[in-house]
Amino acid sequence: MSSFIRNAWYIVAWADEVTSAPLARRICNEPVVVFRDTAGKAAALSDRCCHRGTPLSLGEVVAAGIQCGYHGQVFDAAGRCVHIPGQERIPEKARVPSYPIVEKDALLWIWVGEAEKADPSLIIDLPQHNDPQRWPHRHNVYHIGGSYLLMIDNLMDLTHLGYIHRKTIGGNPSAHVGAKMETVRTDRGLKFTRWMLDSVPPPTYVNVYGFTGRVDRWQEFEFIAPGSVKQWTGALDAGTGAYEGKRDGGFQFHVFHGLSPETEKSCHYFWSTATGFRQNEPEVGERFFIESGATFLEDKVFVEQQQARLDEFGEDWLVDVQSDAARVHMRRVIERMRNPGAATLAAE
Amino acid sequence: MSSFIRNAWYIVAWADEVTSAPLARRICNEPVVVFRDTAGKAAALSDRCCHRGTPLSLGEVVAAGIQCGYHGQVFDAAGRCVHIPGQERIPEKARVPSYPIVEKDALLWIWVGEAEKADPSLIIDLPQHNDPQRWPHRHNVYHIGGSYLLMIDNLMDLTHLGYIHRKTIGGNPSAHVGAKMETVRTDRGLKFTRWMLDSVPPPTYVNVYGFTGRVDRWQEFEFIAPGSVKQWTGALDAGTGAYEGKRDGGFQFHVFHGLSPETEKSCHYFWSTATGFRQNEPEVGERFFIESGATFLEDKVFVEQQQARLDEFGEDWLVDVQSDAARVHMRRVIERMRNPGAATLAAE
Amino acid sequence: MSSFIRNAWYIVAWADEVTSAPLARRICNEPVVVFRDTAGKAAALSDRCCHRGTPLSLGEVVAAGIQCGYHGQVFDAAGRCVHIPGQERIPEKARVPSYPIVEKDALLWIWVGEAEKADPSLIIDLPQHNDPQRWPHRHNVYHIGGSYLLMIDNLMDLTHLGYIHRKTIGGNPSAHVGAKMETVRTDRGLKFTRWMLDSVPPPTYVNVYGFTGRVDRWQEFEFIAPGSVKQWTGALDAGTGAYEGKRDGGFQFHVFHGLSPETEKSCHYFWSTATGFRQNEPEVGERFFIESGATFLEDKVFVEQQQARLDEFGEDWLVDVQSDAARVHMRRVIERMRNPGAATLAAE
Repeated sequence: MSSFIRNAWYIVAWADEVTSAPLARRICNEPVVVFRDTAGKAAALSDRCCHRGTPLSLGEVVAAGIQCGYHGQVFDAAGRCVHIPGQERIPEKARVPSYPIVEKDALLWIWVGEAEKADPSLIIDLPQHNDPQRWPHRHNVYHIGGSYLLMIDNLMDLTHLGYIHRKTIGGNPSAHVGAKMETVRTDRGLKFTRWMLDSVPPPTYVNVYGFTGRVDRWQEFEFIAPGSVKQWTGALDAGTGAYEGKRDGGFQFHVFHGLSPETEKSCHYFWSTATGFRQNEPEVGERFFIESGATFLEDKVFVEQQQARLDEFGEDWLVDVQSDAARVHMRRVIERMRNPGAATLAAE
Repeated sequence: MSSFIRNAWYIVAWADEVTSAPLARRICNEPVVVFRDTAGKAAALSDRCCHRGTPLSLGEVVAAGIQCGYHGQVFDAAGRCVHIPGQERIPEKARVPSYPIVEKDALLWIWVGEAEKADPSLIIDLPQHNDPQRWPHRHNVYHIGGSYLLMIDNLMDLTHLGYIHRKTIGGNPSAHVGAKMETVRTDRGLKFTRWMLDSVPPPTYVNVYGFTGRVDRWQEFEFIAPGSVKQWTGALDAGTGAYEGKRDGGFQFHVFHGLSPETEKSCHYFWSTATGFRQNEPEVGERFFIESGATFLEDKVFVEQQQARLDEFGEDWLVDVQSDAARVHMRRVIERMRNPGAATLAAE
Repeated sequence: MSSFIRNAWYIVAWADEVTSAPLARRICNEPVVVFRDTAGKAAALSDRCCHRGTPLSLGEVVAAGIQCGYHGQVFDAAGRCVHIPGQERIPEKARVPSYPIVEKDALLWIWVGEAEKADPSLIIDLPQHNDPQRWPHRHNVYHIGGSYLLMIDNLMDLTHLGYIHRKTIGGNPSAHVGAKMETVRTDRGLKFTRWMLDSVPPPTYVNVYGFTGRVDRWQEFEFIAPGSVKQWTGALDAGTGAYEGKRDGGFQFHVFHGLSPETEKSCHYFWSTATGFRQNEPEVGERFFIESGATFLEDKVFVEQQQARLDEFGEDWLVDVQSDAARVHMRRVIERMRNPGAATLAAE
């Protein structure tokens, strides 16, 4: 029995990962080939030719669709076989599963569940991927040897910053632990904001922005089920009104975290950074991107070792603490999506 | 339940692979040690000492047989223990399974089934391995992470040449697909001949023979169950009578493909090339051998990825096409060998 | 059903392996983190934080115990959680299993069974680890991909020296096979002495001691269940009274072999060499240590391949021989410890 939430949009790739060459990627344990037709429109099929089972991703894009590299059968974007070398008649059953796919805000999203429920309006907006002047962005994808839920867990309890990331973005643990936290529940998840008022800025912030004194620092995290976390973070010199609402200008950035299950115990981590300061200096955005990537690799180490322990010992013996509040709510949202009563949630 | 056809001869090694040092190789999921006694005669035993289970292949050949490298027990070619260090009496049950083994035409063949049915006359002839003047040959063995049946499938549907091997021996896909094909069934398999009359020679042929124009090209493939495929291929200048029977001289070669199951999902691929042209120029045979090897590695990639998909999805969803005709017949022959009613086939 | 003997002391590490950084090691399939508190006292906990399951070995030692590297919880040497960042009250159930641990004679021993039975007086003495003048020692640990019992098997049947170690410590096989052997049973195992009187010394002995003629050579091996083998080996010029009891001086050494199960099919091999000759020449002890290590790697190869065969074929088909006598008795001692009637043995 799979525990995947199938009726949902998942990121399968960054739009720029898919060019004329097919891309193979597994989502919810389904092997998928993503390709662009000769007009550039993306398509997603099950990555297995219905003739002899070979991955279509070993083939190539032709005018009519994707051609299997073994014996030359061609499939269109809907998965219909449209060419069999040496044969006029094409059997009706010669087809492979296809998946609804949507390109939006630099990402390709697919739906591996019931196709008739695939409503593109459910796909979240990520305007910072389309606003190079105000929010120049950079992106990447990491493979994680742990469940996508462990990665979202990680983002829902930021007390980890002071420990895992002590040497990078974390800074002083007690500043994080003592952060003032405001949480609101949303239709598809939750949003929380943490304020570290009058605090010492972490090394990364000082490096890229040049703070010389204490800061008012905020972290706004929004979880949108099943796999997205939008982060808006920033800091201004302490006492200059950030908490009261003057958050324009100053040091701030968006980070997007998109988690797509690969298998029950592994996931793809699509992430981007978009800097809202010194936008005309590419080296600043690049540096922030590189340091963020190093930080997320620290999370990868912990999540992968955590997954191994949970595989071995289950989860019944774990003891929640106060800082798990957002994480626990996130898990409840996921559970509601998994069982029938919550099936409507995805379409809310 | 094993699906191996055990009452059959399988190649365990090229004769020149087995020298004074023992060789370990798994056939039909049985670990086998192959060695030559001090007179040079080959023997094959189960590769596990009956004393403490250590592989005998870690030991060495002595006058009386093969000596275990752990505590020194010696086994003769029939698997009987003939020496136990420090002990006079040898228990009757101190023995390891032995396998009938025959050396013929540069190959070592073993029989892992019922020994009394191991009739050496069932072993196929490969005269090109013993005819260095007319058919100088070279050989190799590849490990393939896929069933031996997928490798034979590959050889039974040559439309793949135009796709997998497009850049090497394949040439123009439509020439292959449109090939004139004549098939005959045989006692132990089938034979088909494909004719590509008045066609453009593939790059490999031009490289080694120097064709300047179009050719009449043939491919004769004979499958002999369970694991052998004899290939005789050639080309002459178009219109010079090849189809009518004048196939002497010109460009031609034999390729032998011997597939031995290692496990249900892996096999050993023993192959040789024997060139019937420019026989006095070793560099020509060498070049053809090397290019053939590169070509077969292209097949390896596809078969291994195909095996992974079939492991995951089974085969019920696959759709046969016209070019599968020889492949489907091959599979029927295999099925007849597997079930009792067909058990006589191997002895026909 | 586990076949581990849990009510027993096992070596978890050499004392000098555990410094201020935590060490992760699996014993009887339990993941253990070993660390020293700020006063240097060793502690051993189950290597999984009760908050979210992360290995504690990714964390660091703090004044109050070991701090999880993920969200900062701290556990003391008894496994009690003593600090949860951002939270005053610590739930009673916030604890991780702890293991009795004892540091003795350069080794750290833990007890993974019922803690109330963990009697430190059961831990064997290894005085040569504390006697640098008379017995300068060196030590190491190897990971072995085979059961700890196969490693003890190896030590209980020294006829293997003439085969596996023919080129190193073994020397002439027939000298080993014909050795005069005296065995006595002990409360917790057995002790045997093998005498090779008037024999050719093996290459290693000649290398490090400079024998010029034949020797009287002895090997005294004592097995103490479940995982220890004490070896006392030496040689004197033939006919100078070694057998009669004059074993002082001359060429001799202690080797300690400590085997701790990691999983059912793998173990940790803690070993030391202590030389009782040329004690003031460190290069002599170093050379003997290095050659011993090379020898034990020869055993590793055989045991790992043996494990693979036993996994595949079981053990019912194996045939014991005379040289298995000590090995078979060792196995009986182990069986008595495993079943309830023998449970008292460990406490004898």
